[in-house]
Order: sequence, then structure tokens, then C-alpha cells
Amino acid sequence: MAENQMENEAKKRVMLTVAYDGTAYNGWQIQPNGVTIESELARAYEELTGEKITITGASRTDAGVHALCNKAVFDTTTMIPAEKLSYALNRYLPEDIRIRQSCQVAPDFHPRRVESEKTYLYQIYNGPFPDPTLRLYSYFVYVPLDVEAMKQAAAFFEGTHDFAAISTYKPEVESTVRTIKAISVEETKREAGSEDRLISIRVTGNGFLYHMVRILAGTLLEVGRGRMKPEEIPGILESQNRDLAGPTAPACGLTMISHIFL
Amino acid sequence: MAENQMENEAKKRVMLTVAYDGTAYNGWQIQPNGVTIESELARAYEELTGEKITITGASRTDAGVHALCNKAVFDTTTMIPAEKLSYALNRYLPEDIRIRQSCQVAPDFHPRRVESEKTYLYQIYNGPFPDPTLRLYSYFVYVPLDVEAMKQAAAFFEGTHDFAAISTYKPEVESTVRTIKAISVEETKREAGSEDRLISIRVTGNGFLYHMVRILAGTLLEVGRGRMKPEEIPGILESQNRDLAGPTAPACGLTMISHIFL
Repeated sequence: MAENQMENEAKKRVMLTVAYDGTAYNGWQIQPNGVTIESELARAYEELTGEKITITGASRTDAGVHALCNKAVFDTTTMIPAEKLSYALNRYLPEDIRIRQSCQVAPDFHPRRVESEKTYLYQIYNGPFPDPTLRLYSYFVYVPLDVEAMKQAAAFFEGTHDFAAISTYKPEVESTVRTIKAISVEETKREAGSEDRLISIRVTGNGFLYHMVRILAGTLLEVGRGRMKPEEIPGILESQNRDLAGPTAPACGLTMISHIFL
Repeated sequence: MAENQMENEAKKRVMLTVAYDGTAYNGWQIQPNGVTIESELARAYEELTGEKITITGASRTDAGVHALCNKAVFDTTTMIPAEKLSYALNRYLPEDIRIRQSCQVAPDFHPRRVESEKTYLYQIYNGPFPDPTLRLYSYFVYVPLDVEAMKQAAAFFEGTHDFAAISTYKPEVESTVRTIKAISVEETKREAGSEDRLISIRVTGNGFLYHMVRILAGTLLEVGRGRMKPEEIPGILESQNRDLAGPTAPACGLTMISHIFL
């Protein structure tokens, strides 16, 4: 009993804030095949401390998706102070995965059972030819897109809706109602006067369904190409029919840029 | 004689506008060792047409430097129309090299003997931890930089000066006087309220000395770190002494973003 208690005292729960370029990885979650962000974190942790850990991620991002601030939570008996783990672990991780912060959290803290706010960025490179320096972090579209129409369409997604039509079905999900707190579509040019532009879709909400941001981006792309009208969005949402929305936009364009626990 | 003339008529000079991610390459110019942008272009051209070409580049960028618009000029006897070569060649090139445009030019056109205007972008990622999705295209600095001081310092570089102190000595260069037509320092944040920011230095001029933009960026970084004052820039320029300027900033932060023949 006393021994058991000592063991519990030596154990602590740690949370890492993890940034990664998802290009080289088979997503977040440990897979039987392929290197994932979780498997790299576990490998680095074992090399640093000799301890095998089981990681719980806040967002189980897909293969090729990037993140600036995903959260990894695990229990450990290490004597290294939680705050120092970020620096120590970065020495064992490749350059495309960086721990931005580490801290101790409550022993029952679970990153997917706490209210939080996430912001995703979906980048589209729109121009006659691809920009090789943006190819890993944006989706290249050469057809000139109507950004004004995309902005109008985006506004219809704001607020609380049933997003069944804008997500990939997962039987274990109880409700497909989610709230988008903010959504914006912006264009920026690297060179004044150039035809090429980067279109950035930013979406903030407290929960997202599977593939939701990528299908939302794919639907806005249909509007941008003139194949769909902004006014059609409310009907697509009401239909709850995935087939009426646009295709799932490629993973490389997506980056989780912010994740705050409320 | 008549035969010779026919040969001349069949020959044409073509100019390609080339965009590339320099990460994987040993610079622009063909080297005895390592793959370069030029060697990839020549290989792709030979695979497409069976013809070996000799390429003259407008900017012989260093290993790791990126470009959105470098120019490659060569003579060819191909029957493929010059305008179609961009599409055809892209099928034989890796994704990190893209031909954005191809056109026929005068038989005596030389891309380094024509007046032109180039714009370079040097990107610095300034924050407590690196952003893995920007690591290949920016220089990471964790010490908080004084961007206002960098802006003040940058203004001193504008105009016509002897840039001997802001370049790596090359004996074959006759004059180190160059004109910077415009220079700006801007900061942008991916997330509102975040500590991290991308600092973009843009420099436009009609000619640049070897390493000039990288040494200019390295000197502005010394100012940003508080090791040098903006008012020291005129004295450094006047000294013509390379040792008084800042270090040569890393290649990965540099991208040639525009090149216009005047």
C-alpha cells in the first residue's frame, strides 16, 4: 500500500506541445506500418530516458497534415523536470518535429476530454504554375479562383450546424453538430502585380469532425472554380449528404495552427 | 554555305523561367560533384529531345538558395515550339523544379548582359522554437529581434553605394558599386497574439554582388539582436571592410522572387 503510493507519487503526467511538418509521416497515431509523429516521440523519449511511454494525442492528424501545436500527453517516472523535457527531447528528434513546450498536468488530464479551441489553416496556391517552395504546405490549383465567392460561401459555415455533409462518416461519432466560431478566406501575393497568390482559409472551432476542414476547403474550392454557388451552402448543410459537398482537399494544404484549452 | 545557313535557321535560342526549392541541390551551376538545377534541366532536356544543351543562367544561386523566377538560356534545334517546352519539360523534372514559362529570344540574348531588376526575399523565423513547416525556407532565430531597429538600418542601404563591405570578395568583379532601388523589412504573424513571427526582408536592385543579400540580412540581424546600431550602417559601407558587417546569413532563408529584364 505504502509502496504503491510511492510509485504514484513518482509518476507524473506531462503534456508536450508538438510542431511538425507532416510530409514524411504516416500521420499522428502509431500504425503497424510506417513512421508516425507518435512513434517518433515514443522512440525519442525512450532514447532519452530509457522509459517506454503511451501517448495520447489531442488531434490525430492524418498522413501529410502539419501542426504547429498538437498536444501529446503521457505518464512518466522520469526525474527530468517537465519544463526541461522539451529541450532534452528535441535533441533526439528529427528537424521536422519540434517540441515547443512541455509542462506537468493533472494526473487525470485527457487532451480530448477538455473543452478547447482549435484553429486550422488550409492553404491553396493559385497560379498558372506551382511554386516549388510552397508545394509541401499548400494545394496547387491553376484554374483562377473566385476568392470573393469563396468568402461569401465561407460565411455560411459560421455558427452551429450539423456538419454531416462536411465530414467523412465515422460510426462511433454520436453527434455531427459542431460550432465554427470564425472562418476567413484571405489572399496574399508574394510579389506585387503577380498572378500567383496564396489563398488562406482559417477555421476556428471547439471541435471538428473527421476530414471536416479538408471537405470544407474542397467545397469552397468548388465555389472558387464556379461549379457551385455560395447560396448552395445552407442547402448542402441541411441535406446532411456528404455527396453534395466538394471533394476532400489534399492533406498537404492543412496545418493545425492553434490549440488552446479553455 | 547554304547548308550552314540552314543549320543556323533551324537553331533557336530559348529562355526558361525556372522556379525551384534549392534544398536538395548543390546550387544552380553544374558542378563536378552533386546534382544542381542546371544539371537537372540539362538531363530533363536530353530525355525529352535527345539533345545535349549548354545552359546560361541569369543568377548562379548558391546551394540551398531558392528561386521563383531564375532564367535559363540555351540554343536548341528542337522542333517543339518554344512556348510548349515548359509543359513538356515539367514532365521530366522533379516536383521541386518547375518551369513556369518558356519562350524564344534573340540569338544573341545573354541573360547576364541585359539590364534587369531582381527582387530577393530573405525570411527569418523569430520565436522561442522553430516552426518545422518553415525550416527549409527561413532562418530560425530565437533571440527576440528589434524589428524597428532593423527597419531603420535597412533604410541606410537604399540607393547607390559601394557594397564592398556587404559582399564576399571576388577578384574578377571590377566595381563593387551597386544600387538598391527598394528595401523593406516586414513582420507577419501566422496566429494573432503569438510570440512567433516571420520577418521578411525584400531587396530590389539591378545587380547584386556575391553573397550581398545574405550579408545584408546578416548585418540587419546584428542590428535586430542589439549588437549593432542602425546608425553604424553608413560607416560600415564607407569602410569597404567586409569584417565590419554581419555574418553571411544561411542560404535557406533566401529566395529570388522576381527577375525582370528592362
